[in-house]
Amino acid sequence: LAAAVAAGKVRVPTHVVSSICDDRGEEPTYAGVSMSELMEREYGVGDVIALLWFKRHLPKYATKFIEMCVMLCADHGPCVSGAHNTIVTSRAGKDVVSSLVAGLLTIGPRFGGAIDDAARLFKAACDADDSPADFVEGLKRRGVRVSGIGHRIKSKDNRDKRVALLQEYARKFFPSTRYLDYAVAVEAYTLQKAPNLVLNVDGAIAAIFLDLLAASGAFSPAEAEQIVNIGYLNALFVVARSIGLVGHALDQRRLQQPLYRHPWEDVLYTS
Amino acid sequence: LAAAVAAGKVRVPTHVVSSICDDRGEEPTYAGVSMSELMEREYGVGDVIALLWFKRHLPKYATKFIEMCVMLCADHGPCVSGAHNTIVTSRAGKDVVSSLVAGLLTIGPRFGGAIDDAARLFKAACDADDSPADFVEGLKRRGVRVSGIGHRIKSKDNRDKRVALLQEYARKFFPSTRYLDYAVAVEAYTLQKAPNLVLNVDGAIAAIFLDLLAASGAFSPAEAEQIVNIGYLNALFVVARSIGLVGHALDQRRLQQPLYRHPWEDVLYTS
Amino acid sequence: LAAAVAAGKVRVPTHVVSSICDDRGEEPTYAGVSMSELMEREYGVGDVIALLWFKRHLPKYATKFIEMCVMLCADHGPCVSGAHNTIVTSRAGKDVVSSLVAGLLTIGPRFGGAIDDAARLFKAACDADDSPADFVEGLKRRGVRVSGIGHRIKSKDNRDKRVALLQEYARKFFPSTRYLDYAVAVEAYTLQKAPNLVLNVDGAIAAIFLDLLAASGAFSPAEAEQIVNIGYLNALFVVARSIGLVGHALDQRRLQQPLYRHPWEDVLYTS
Amino acid sequence: LAAAVAAGKVRVPTHVVSSICDDRGEEPTYAGVSMSELMEREYGVGDVIALLWFKRHLPKYATKFIEMCVMLCADHGPCVSGAHNTIVTSRAGKDVVSSLVAGLLTIGPRFGGAIDDAARLFKAACDADDSPADFVEGLKRRGVRVSGIGHRIKSKDNRDKRVALLQEYARKFFPSTRYLDYAVAVEAYTLQKAPNLVLNVDGAIAAIFLDLLAASGAFSPAEAEQIVNIGYLNALFVVARSIGLVGHALDQRRLQQPLYRHPWEDVLYTS
Ligand SMILES: CC(C)(COP(=O)(O)OP(=O)(O)OC[C@H]1O[C@@H](n2cnc3c(N)ncnc32)[C@H](O)[C@@H]1OP(=O)(O)O)[C@@H](O)C(=O)NCCC(=O)NCCS
Ligand SMILES: CC(C)(COP(=O)(O)OP(=O)(O)OC[C@H]1O[C@@H](n2cnc3c(N)ncnc32)[C@H](O)[C@@H]1OP(=O)(O)O)[C@@H](O)C(=O)NCCC(=O)NCCS
Ligand SMILES: CC(C)(COP(=O)(O)OP(=O)(O)OC[C@H]1O[C@@H](n2cnc3c(N)ncnc32)[C@H](O)[C@@H]1OP(=O)(O)O)[C@@H](O)C(=O)NCCC(=O)NCCS
Ligand SMILES: CC(C)(COP(=O)(O)OP(=O)(O)OC[C@H]1O[C@@H](n2cnc3c(N)ncnc32)[C@H](O)[C@@H]1OP(=O)(O)O)[C@@H](O)C(=O)NCCC(=O)NCCS
Repeated sequence: LAAAVAAGKVRVPTHVVSSICDDRGEEPTYAGVSMSELMEREYGVGDVIALLWFKRHLPKYATKFIEMCVMLCADHGPCVSGAHNTIVTSRAGKDVVSSLVAGLLTIGPRFGGAIDDAARLFKAACDADDSPADFVEGLKRRGVRVSGIGHRIKSKDNRDKRVALLQEYARKFFPSTRYLDYAVAVEAYTLQKAPNLVLNVDGAIAAIFLDLLAASGAFSPAEAEQIVNIGYLNALFVVARSIGLVGHALDQRRLQQPLYRHPWEDVLYTS
Repeated sequence: LAAAVAAGKVRVPTHVVSSICDDRGEEPTYAGVSMSELMEREYGVGDVIALLWFKRHLPKYATKFIEMCVMLCADHGPCVSGAHNTIVTSRAGKDVVSSLVAGLLTIGPRFGGAIDDAARLFKAACDADDSPADFVEGLKRRGVRVSGIGHRIKSKDNRDKRVALLQEYARKFFPSTRYLDYAVAVEAYTLQKAPNLVLNVDGAIAAIFLDLLAASGAFSPAEAEQIVNIGYLNALFVVARSIGLVGHALDQRRLQQPLYRHPWEDVLYTS
Repeated sequence: LAAAVAAGKVRVPTHVVSSICDDRGEEPTYAGVSMSELMEREYGVGDVIALLWFKRHLPKYATKFIEMCVMLCADHGPCVSGAHNTIVTSRAGKDVVSSLVAGLLTIGPRFGGAIDDAARLFKAACDADDSPADFVEGLKRRGVRVSGIGHRIKSKDNRDKRVALLQEYARKFFPSTRYLDYAVAVEAYTLQKAPNLVLNVDGAIAAIFLDLLAASGAFSPAEAEQIVNIGYLNALFVVARSIGLVGHALDQRRLQQPLYRHPWEDVLYTS
Repeated sequence: LAAAVAAGKVRVPTHVVSSICDDRGEEPTYAGVSMSELMEREYGVGDVIALLWFKRHLPKYATKFIEMCVMLCADHGPCVSGAHNTIVTSRAGKDVVSSLVAGLLTIGPRFGGAIDDAARLFKAACDADDSPADFVEGLKRRGVRVSGIGHRIKSKDNRDKRVALLQEYARKFFPSTRYLDYAVAVEAYTLQKAPNLVLNVDGAIAAIFLDLLAASGAFSPAEAEQIVNIGYLNALFVVARSIGLVGHALDQRRLQQPLYRHPWEDVLYTS
């Protein structure tokens, strides 16, 4: 900002600084790319996310991977916290935005929010060349769970199909899968401890995204570091799940469901 | 529900009814389509929206149109209500979800929310074979503005590029553009009244979506009616703009912007 | 605003206009009343609401009534939509603000939001001297329910205690209970139709607030009209219930409840 | 819970556990106190907060102090993040709940959220008998600011009136002001460093609340510890400011303000 002032780009410091989209010209641009260009080059939703979040073009295999994450995380049924809150709000007769928002607000440490933490852990360990055993045992000593590892229902012999699909894609199209390989090595180690300590969707997205940041040639190491620190990756889940939550809000309206009231018998009134 | 009970599908009535996604089997399914199938058939984000919201497959030209809407509405700069609220919240040090949500809550009658109303008006008028003149003058008599018509800045000689791109696409790929043609005829009439009464993005999306509902063969007239009445179309804007709002939240973090305080001098303290 | 510009109070039109609180001087003031004055005069929460929402002093019996509404509506157990959403969000490990907000978003037409509508209906009917029978039957012909009348569980012989307490208070301290009397006459009529068509809390607050607006001498008829039209009264419920929702968010943390997942068996997966 | 199951209070474990309000009987109760009792005993809003959050009766001086906090924090003008977001949302034509919520979501580390942190710091230091100098310099070495100390505008010779009012009240009515005295001693030390390092409102509320927890006789040391750890005190600010935010939402409606758009000239479009 100081530089911009010095360069005469601004006279008085402005109150707002922004960098992702410019709406002042003939056409809005996303990181400098006009709407017409978006259409001509046959860009997709993944490219738009790349332009608005990372402010750069990413190779096709990378934007396809982003779209894959959006598609695979778009919904996971009506029972999870997010969908449940959206359903309750929609049944209270509230608008789609309010219903969506009530669901989004549940996303966090326990629901949908382990991707950034997994990325931070895998990056630090893999960059430091820690062995999977040292990595897992080190966390254990500090009383920290390995984000990206573990599942309530899935296990060694009953893998999460979404993880398999993501892995397959990365191995086929990515120039390097160093972080993914590391995550799989961690999984091999944790599976010796318990059969449900599989690499979960959050972990798979985290590891493959690290490979995208490291090997696509589009990011400097400092930029990759910054993205992982700020936490861009859970945001993928947030945007993805918005699609499903809106779907649930509209579904309840279509089904004309009445006001939800939790049954008294299912509550323990305690002190 | 009663039928389901009768059919023995449920014994006691359940407290929640849901129809878009089933998470009970090996893989979650969206309207019956498994994750593996999504990948094998090279489905995109548009197909996922079709499956989760409309619970059916739509032809490629239709899902591409849905993606085009998402892409063109993903952001419109930092000055609009939604982005502004997200920026203020992010600068208050709040997480990405809270920041996104504060922006989403501004979407409504005056910001981003004219698509459903435009669809309702265009559908009723076009189905009733009202002439554009009768349609516009009829609304005027009732003191109602034509949703989907009018723009602050754009005008006859300075069209909104996004509207042009959407129209072009529909004329090239859609089997019928009856509703779009009607909307353009309405525009021709309103442009005689004032040069800024152009067909705007909301109006273009509304009209083309009506063509999708009517001519894709995927919806019965009753289903099309229901979708327009319930109001699915603004939800496209909501999901699209989520991408931009998340972008703004992350942008402010990256730029390490401090707490926003509106300047005293810009406020009229009145009574 | 134009007048203010003309009067030289502002030179260029400001972008924000505000009237409830001035934070520019030594002490902030609420509608002109300083913090010190608030304390010296032994004002209460009801007076602060009067100053910030209605921008005037109200007599003691009126601000006590406002506090009574806040107290009686502060919570209604963990099963209602609002508390349920807050509980689910808190159990997802989210902060108190996010948990509160997820609950607040359920307040609307079906939960907590009938006070303004009841006030509009009672005011119009009572001002027009409609008989209770004409009023009720007129609404019935238009297919509209009488807001403020009816209860799921309470009935003629099992009245809602909160309604009784509010009525008692108004009869003891209010200079006039014309609107309350009218609401009770309406109840007498509807109770002939069905035993559960009692005056409910929303209806009682609405009627007594109309008496406050009409008979306190603090509002002109035009001001009373405006308050009822804009809809200030549901906001009383919103602020009141914030107390209870925050209580539920904190309660779940204290009880260290895990992530909520709605049971599969309680969901009908339909199409 | 396990105990409750064992005691036969529940047969199958229920899915929800709740402790603040029971709505199953004739009248709802707050921590066992019925609505009628609330009225008969002339309880106020402060008592309701005590019952629903702390689940116990507190002495009059304590509940009056809670009400004082609510009153003094109810609003602080239209320029702060929270009010600004609410104003923008209300001007977008959205309902009171959405507008309130958009404002509440800005409350956090930089706006309104320093009370709990201040309480944690003051409690730990005072309980350990750290001298103010050791306390302040210790934090400095760790690069941590003293929460509850410092103000943008106020200073040694221009104190915040609200802090003075709170102090005066505590000294007059509280059985002990040990923590407040400690906070004031800290202030005396920091004021030697810079004139704006005064005890701010957040700090004053934090210190006095610690006195309430320690000396009212209503809390065991373990309970006081738990309340400070979980973070109940910012919630006081949240409930208080709800009153002001609702006031701003209604104010904008009354003033019929149009859609807010931030001025282009005030934005630095950067990269
Ligand atoms: C997903 C998760 C909540 C499932 O947990 P769960 O099936 O309920 O497992 P439990 O909490 O019962 O744990 C069972 C044992 O495995 C251990 N364990 C579970 N997940 C672990 C992990 N990620 N790292 C290390 N140990 C783990 C537990 O400590 C426990 O060991 P113990 O019995 O010796 O105490 C859990 O694995 C987890 O927290 N993972 C990390 C966060 C994450 O990735 N979340 C995204 C989920 S999509
Ligand atoms: C978009 C919009 C707000 C721009 O409005 P604006 O440039 O500020 O225009 P103004 O409100 O100053 O209106 C100027 C004149 O045009 C008329 N007008 C504007 N939009 C009109 C419409 N959609 N239908 C009929 N008349 C319209 C106004 O009534 C006014 O006439 P008057 O001077 O005789 O009173 C407005 O056109 C509108 O409300 N459109 C409908 C809603 C919509 O589609 N919104 C989506 C926007 S992307
Ligand atoms: C509160 C309420 C939802 C309870 O309803 P309920 O016990 O579920 O009652 P039902 O919906 O089963 O209605 C039973 C019958 O009473 C009638 N009825 C219920 N409330 C009515 C009202 N407020 N006005 C007129 N008729 C009413 C219904 O139309 C129905 O008649 P029908 O059998 O001939 O169709 C309902 O009375 C209502 O909508 N009231 C108005 C809104 C209101 O005040 N809400 C605030 C609640 S605190
Ligand atoms: C309220 C606050 C943001 C005001 O800050 P400000 O006037 O903008 O002060 P600055 O950030 O310019 O700081 C000026 C100097 O005072 C120091 N300082 C400010 N607040 C301090 C604190 N609470 N503890 C220790 N040092 C502090 C700064 O480190 C800085 O020192 P430096 O110049 O050597 O780096 C700040 O005092 C603060 O962060 N306080 C703690 C959080 C808090 O209580 N917030 C509630 C506010 S109601």
